[in-house]
This record gives sequence, structure tokens and C-alpha cells, in this order.
Amino acid sequence: MVSESTETSAPAPGCPWSAREAELLAVTLKLLQQHGYERLTVEAVATEARASKSTMYRRWPSKADLVLAAFIEGTRESAVHPRTGSLRGDLLAMGMSVCEQSREHASTMRAVLDEMSRSEALRAAMQDKFVYHRNVLIREVLGDAVARGEIQAEAINPEIWDVLPGYLVFRSLVADRPPTDETVRALVDEVLMPSLTRGTTSR
Amino acid sequence: MVSESTETSAPAPGCPWSAREAELLAVTLKLLQQHGYERLTVEAVATEARASKSTMYRRWPSKADLVLAAFIEGTRESAVHPRTGSLRGDLLAMGMSVCEQSREHASTMRAVLDEMSRSEALRAAMQDKFVYHRNVLIREVLGDAVARGEIQAEAINPEIWDVLPGYLVFRSLVADRPPTDETVRALVDEVLMPSLTRGTTSR
Repeated sequence: MVSESTETSAPAPGCPWSAREAELLAVTLKLLQQHGYERLTVEAVATEARASKSTMYRRWPSKADLVLAAFIEGTRESAVHPRTGSLRGDLLAMGMSVCEQSREHASTMRAVLDEMSRSEALRAAMQDKFVYHRNVLIREVLGDAVARGEIQAEAINPEIWDVLPGYLVFRSLVADRPPTDETVRALVDEVLMPSLTRGTTSR
Repeated sequence: MVSESTETSAPAPGCPWSAREAELLAVTLKLLQQHGYERLTVEAVATEARASKSTMYRRWPSKADLVLAAFIEGTRESAVHPRTGSLRGDLLAMGMSVCEQSREHASTMRAVLDEMSRSEALRAAMQDKFVYHRNVLIREVLGDAVARGEIQAEAINPEIWDVLPGYLVFRSLVADRPPTDETVRALVDEVLMPSLTRGTTSR
């Protein structure tokens, strides 16, 4: 097994990976975008990044693990509270971010989903490392809107917390009709805001 | 080439296929549910249905064509206007129907989507033979609600016509969190109705 001590360095800010690991994941994403999931091999990533295969497999035991990690790393920036100061602004910012990322990573997302349908472990990892954090983020955004008096806490239904990302991801991956800025605006202004502000007198 | 004259019979009501073709598609769906897309072969369908392979390939030139036709045939009942007499009733009925069908056909839908990402022809067929009809159906349901005075025509935005099926399909296929009756109720009462009735005084 090759020693990694010379390869690793200080972790990048806000990132759970070492700088070297983040680099390996960035190479993975680049090759995914160039060649797609099926033609990607762990060997090709190792070669491109000048890493050993054992390095790769020690950290990510399978191609699916590697791709999921790369996807989560590549979508990290959308996991941040936009803090625009208004619910509408926050929803628009989050929606635009989902659109941008599903444009950029559509084929990766399709491949991860396909693998998820076969792998319980991958489903659990996706839930744990991706979905959970998005749920927390949206709860924070909505909680802040309640604190500002923009909406009532009763208007929030956890059962359907993911209508915003869900519909936009559907448009990108399933409907083959990639969402635009206008899609996000319509969804926020004509669907989500009327839903969340129902029962609020001052709007 | 085997003669088909003895196999075909009068078409079933409301169905574009002959009774024999509908039977072949029903066998396809049954085998899909039992074995999944990858393990399905046109040969196995032909054997199970006692048809010749040439019969199958003449009607559906590829496995993907066959599976798409079977999926559309299997979801035909949800393509009908519910005519409950109210917008809320129609939306609930359509939502329940989407849930039921994505429960029943989840693996088929995943496989069709996966094939679509590779095949322009399949994408075009899906658009032409499935999506277009769902769009027409929802336009009719909303148009009837306008005619009954339940909503204003201005509240309808064609850009986001598919929020109802889109979010429910997302929940079934992408989020791995199959929607329930309560999901549909929440989506209709707390999201879609507030959206569509905004600007309407009498609600």
C-alpha cells in the first residue's frame, strides 16, 4: 500500500476532505462530465490524478462510492443558506442553485440514481450525506422566515419539504425539460409563496 | 415472416392496439415487474405470449420501444379526466393515480428514463405519446375549473403545468420516498390550491 503522507495537505475550508482528496474528487467529476458514468473507471481517475489505485479504493471502496462523494463535493456550494434577508430571495437563490447544478451534473445524477436503485448502501449514503443536509437547510430558511414574521410556522409541512428541489430535479432529470430562471421564478412566486404565506394577512 | 392474421382480433375499447398487441404488452409489463428491465428479453416475451420474435420486432423494433409501449398502455387509465366536479377533487384523483402507477411501475419508469438519456428517438416518443397527453389532460382539468369559476385563467402558468405529477414522480423515483395519500392531500390542499386560487375572492 502506497504511503499517502506526501500527498495529503491541510483540508480546504468547509470541506470534510483533505486537499488531496478534494482534488481526487474534482478529477472524478471532470472525467464524469467528459465520459459519463459508465465509461468512468477508478483506474482512469487514479491515472489522471497521479494517485495509486489503492489510495482510491481505500477511501472509496467502489466506483459508486467515489461518484457519490464527487457529486456531494461538487454540489457543496448549494448546501449553504443564501441569507438574502427575505424568504422569496432565499427560495429564488436556492432554486437557481439547484438548476445550475442539475444542468452541470445531470448525467452524474442520473447515474447515481440508477446505482441507488440497485444499492441499499448507496441509498443510505445519499440519504445521510446529501438529503439530510438539504432538509436541514430548508428548515433553517423557513424557520428564519417564521422568525421574521413572513410566514406562520403552521404553514410549513415537513411531509412536502422538498417541493422546490424536487420539481426542479424532476424537470432536469425526468422531464428532459431543463428548468430556466423563469421556471424558478414561477415556482417561487406562483406556487411556493402563495402556499407558505396562506393564512398570513400581511403580504 | 409469420402471418399475423390468425393472431389479431378486434381492438379493445379506447386502446390503439389490437387485442393481441395489448396482450403482448400486458405480458411485457408482467415480465418487467417480475424480472426488471435489464433481465427482460424480447424473446422471453415472445415465448411467454406464444408469439414469434418477428411479430414482436415488426411492431416494436427494439426492447426500449416495447417497454415504452407497455408502460404507456399500463398507465392508460390515469390519462382520463377524473370529472369529480371540483378542481380539488380532480387534482386529488390525478395525484392518487400518479402515486399508484409510480408504485406499480417504478422500476419500469427508472429503466425507461435511463434508456431515454441514451436515445433521442425514445425521448421523442415519450414526449409524443405520453407527456403531450398528460399536458392536454391537465389543461382540460384546469380549463374546467376556470369555466366553473373556481379559479382565474391568469392563475394558470403553462411553464409549470406539471408540478403535481412532477413532484410525485420525483418522490417515487428520485427521492426514494414513495408518496402516500397524505403527500397528495398536502400537495393539493397546501400547495396547488393556494397557488391556483390566488387572486380569487370566493374560496
